[in-house]
Amino acid sequence: MSKPVNEIKSAWIRDAKEADYIVVSSRIRLARNLADFTFPASMTMQDSSEIVKQVQGIAAVIADYNFYQLADLSDLSKQILVEKHMISPQLACLQGQEAAIIINDEGSVSIMVNEEDHLRLQCILPGLNLEQCFQAISNADQELEQKLNYAYDSELGYLTSCPTNLGTGMRASVMLHLPALVKTKNIAKAFDTVAKLGFVARGIYGEGTEGLGHMFQISNQITLGRTEEDIIASLSSLVKQLVDHELNARDYLEENFLIDLEDSVGRAWGLLSGARKISAEETMKLLSKLRLGAERKLVVDIKPADLNKLMLDIQIGSLQQLVHERLDANQRDIIRATILRQRLKQ
Amino acid sequence: MSKPVNEIKSAWIRDAKEADYIVVSSRIRLARNLADFTFPASMTMQDSSEIVKQVQGIAAVIADYNFYQLADLSDLSKQILVEKHMISPQLACLQGQEAAIIINDEGSVSIMVNEEDHLRLQCILPGLNLEQCFQAISNADQELEQKLNYAYDSELGYLTSCPTNLGTGMRASVMLHLPALVKTKNIAKAFDTVAKLGFVARGIYGEGTEGLGHMFQISNQITLGRTEEDIIASLSSLVKQLVDHELNARDYLEENFLIDLEDSVGRAWGLLSGARKISAEETMKLLSKLRLGAERKLVVDIKPADLNKLMLDIQIGSLQQLVHERLDANQRDIIRATILRQRLKQ
Repeated sequence: MSKPVNEIKSAWIRDAKEADYIVVSSRIRLARNLADFTFPASMTMQDSSEIVKQVQGIAAVIADYNFYQLADLSDLSKQILVEKHMISPQLACLQGQEAAIIINDEGSVSIMVNEEDHLRLQCILPGLNLEQCFQAISNADQELEQKLNYAYDSELGYLTSCPTNLGTGMRASVMLHLPALVKTKNIAKAFDTVAKLGFVARGIYGEGTEGLGHMFQISNQITLGRTEEDIIASLSSLVKQLVDHELNARDYLEENFLIDLEDSVGRAWGLLSGARKISAEETMKLLSKLRLGAERKLVVDIKPADLNKLMLDIQIGSLQQLVHERLDANQRDIIRATILRQRLKQ
Repeated sequence: MSKPVNEIKSAWIRDAKEADYIVVSSRIRLARNLADFTFPASMTMQDSSEIVKQVQGIAAVIADYNFYQLADLSDLSKQILVEKHMISPQLACLQGQEAAIIINDEGSVSIMVNEEDHLRLQCILPGLNLEQCFQAISNADQELEQKLNYAYDSELGYLTSCPTNLGTGMRASVMLHLPALVKTKNIAKAFDTVAKLGFVARGIYGEGTEGLGHMFQISNQITLGRTEEDIIASLSSLVKQLVDHELNARDYLEENFLIDLEDSVGRAWGLLSGARKISAEETMKLLSKLRLGAERKLVVDIKPADLNKLMLDIQIGSLQQLVHERLDANQRDIIRATILRQRLKQ
């Protein structure tokens, strides 16, 4: 029996450790398709229903797996899953096909059925933990592969809807908090390096979004012609470099502009503690300053797990879930400010 | 023996009562000149010295009066007297003539010797108290007049350096906090009425200054052809009208934009409590919001006397006096923020 979907906590939020201020989370995603069906973009409703049924049968026998038909989830629940990064906005909006979601009890592994590919498996963990993510997602992948006929070409590797995913079908990504690189105007140079190494940087909610709250996702572009281990090792090494750059930029700001840094953190704390209505966007920008202050042990003392949880709880869906009420934009801004005041009272 | 000048507290700051949120202070000033000397603009050093000597002799025999030669006061002390509104910026900067200041123990009456006129007597009290100011200043005026030969014309009245002060030589003024009239864009209309009645509105530190922190001084233009009682009665009545308009505007904002009002007060409190460096100008603007919130009993609970004291203590001179140190602009911004944090901690 599956748990109520809203009761599953995200591992990357809950399990963040003291060191996880800069590397917020690591994620590995695998794209897999079934050989006996056309890709989701052109499949029939009957196909989609058959795939969901097959996957449900397998998921039922794996311990700790929770299965949800997309159609059974409320819009609010889907919105919250997007905010937790457990499903994509595309799946949440899917119409005209059956789809499903599988999530493990721990809230680290989730599998989307009939998104862009028949199966999208992912594992997200806090901090820099790509190897551990890969281990977890490979286990899930193997369990499924034993019982499903994956579309696989001995030369091309795993076949995918979009050719950019061909081969390993793997995307590895890391979410980084890089306020000091932005502040010192070194972020463009850092992202040049990212691009030269075949990786791409983007905003917190995927392609096309800005680096809101100075959060950036770095992920691999290339899936063909490189092994999973190679991609993971390169990305881990790149992330360590970026973290070093960010730490150097923080040291520079702290050594040369300490009072400005403290002022920025203090004012962010003041606004978050004092506001009676506040947008999600402004909150994200201010939480970014608190996160920087907390990492530097300046002005505020807040753990990464608490910051991650705040970052989630002020989002549109999670906020409404917290108060068990549908809220319009204005009401959300008021409730958001109330929650922030309560949480930041020390 | 005169008290150290920095130990004299301003009555208008210290004695503010619960009701004195909107009418911050009332002030009556009299311009007087001595018949046997030319006006200050054209008098000799010897004249100025002789006048100071005469006035000192009289002040010495009046109880509770403290006498200070301008030359004996440090720049910092003069700056603080300006910030307390006890002397004018013009007197503080005076060069090439002897000048003096007399202040009563209570910190309500001050007399400038050899500013624009030989004598400028003033009384400032908190709230709407023009009659009481006039009573106090008339007593001082009479004590001096008994022993000095005032320049007086039976037709023109008291003779003054500037013809705008001729006649009564009296300027009556009231300092008002009018944020809601500004916010609702009714301030220009209100000041039209002020002008039509022969009064003038200006910023907190006199002519040419803006309404910083929504503080405005309303004073009489005309000194000739109207009795003191008439001017005081008209101004009192005008101020009561302005206060009514301001209260109506506050009611309107509270009824229609309560959350915005609370948000504005809460954010002002947050910034004042959180900042690690802050300018006097930004502080005045934020204190204005706190003052409005306090009057409405919204978000904060601070008495007018405490707000007045904060408004004084964050000024350039008073700030340095508080920490007993000369500070550059950057250091002042840091100390100002420290003081604000301490005072606003509840």
